[in-house]
Amino acid sequence: MPPSNFPANLTDTLAKIEISMAPFYLEDFTPGWRIKTSSYTLGEDEMVAFARKYDPQPFHLDAEAAEKSFFGGLVASGFQSAALTWKLATETGIFKDSGIAGIGIDELHWLHPLHINDTVTCTLEVLANHPSTSKPDRGSVVIRYDLDNHDGRKILTLKLTQILLRRPKN
Amino acid sequence: MPPSNFPANLTDTLAKIEISMAPFYLEDFTPGWRIKTSSYTLGEDEMVAFARKYDPQPFHLDAEAAEKSFFGGLVASGFQSAALTWKLATETGIFKDSGIAGIGIDELHWLHPLHINDTVTCTLEVLANHPSTSKPDRGSVVIRYDLDNHDGRKILTLKLTQILLRRPKN
Repeated sequence: MPPSNFPANLTDTLAKIEISMAPFYLEDFTPGWRIKTSSYTLGEDEMVAFARKYDPQPFHLDAEAAEKSFFGGLVASGFQSAALTWKLATETGIFKDSGIAGIGIDELHWLHPLHINDTVTCTLEVLANHPSTSKPDRGSVVIRYDLDNHDGRKILTLKLTQILLRRPKN
Repeated sequence: MPPSNFPANLTDTLAKIEISMAPFYLEDFTPGWRIKTSSYTLGEDEMVAFARKYDPQPFHLDAEAAEKSFFGGLVASGFQSAALTWKLATETGIFKDSGIAGIGIDELHWLHPLHINDTVTCTLEVLANHPSTSKPDRGSVVIRYDLDNHDGRKILTLKLTQILLRRPKN
């Protein structure tokens, strides 16, 4: 079970050792628990394919048009940076045994553009844990997810509320 | 320019006529303006491809596992329903001439699952319009985006803040 004072400056290796202690349930998500995910490099093909489908604006699609834009070059859709944040978090496996559903997102801020071939890492911090008063097998957690690039620039931050199962009694 | 009392119960056709009045700039996004987008049907291949990449949880990937889940069947990733919301909105063209960048999202609530072959439509309502006090060529708008399925069930709602250009003076 992760200690509530889990250090902020985890290396990927330490995070993986910690995650190998799964399964995790609602009780394990103590406020203050932080975990750093592995990293992911976003290539141009993937960036443009996402934008063509979900966010066909010139600064996500066309290098020449992007140069003249606010961003000065091609940048990923903010919806892709949000999806990548979740990809990194869920691929840790910490929600594998307890994840029921997402409830919502608040305070999502796109802070810095995500560029082609940026390598990003996500850091999670548990902010709140509320056992359900009506359903004894579950509860909700609020977790802050920060996505940083390889230069330590914060790409985005968001708070996501989700429903998790409690540890089964048997 | 859209009237501030634009009716809520637009048909797609009316929305398209209105949108043909582009280009739109910051000044046109008057609080209360509502617009309904065209619709989109999410197929199984697209749903599963997104989940495999960004949200590999069993209830997004595996029909058998999904049957035993909270959802009772395969459902789209919430990050895909958010991206589809934006796809429908941006494909109207209303941000084509003025869109600079997204700032953030608040009050995103996933309210109802998005299933295979659901046909969804987005309704936008402008909530706030703030000309910049420091940069005279731009300002921010807050718009609520509601994604509904073909049965009129609300899949999600979110509020997005973005920066738009003002109408050029010439």
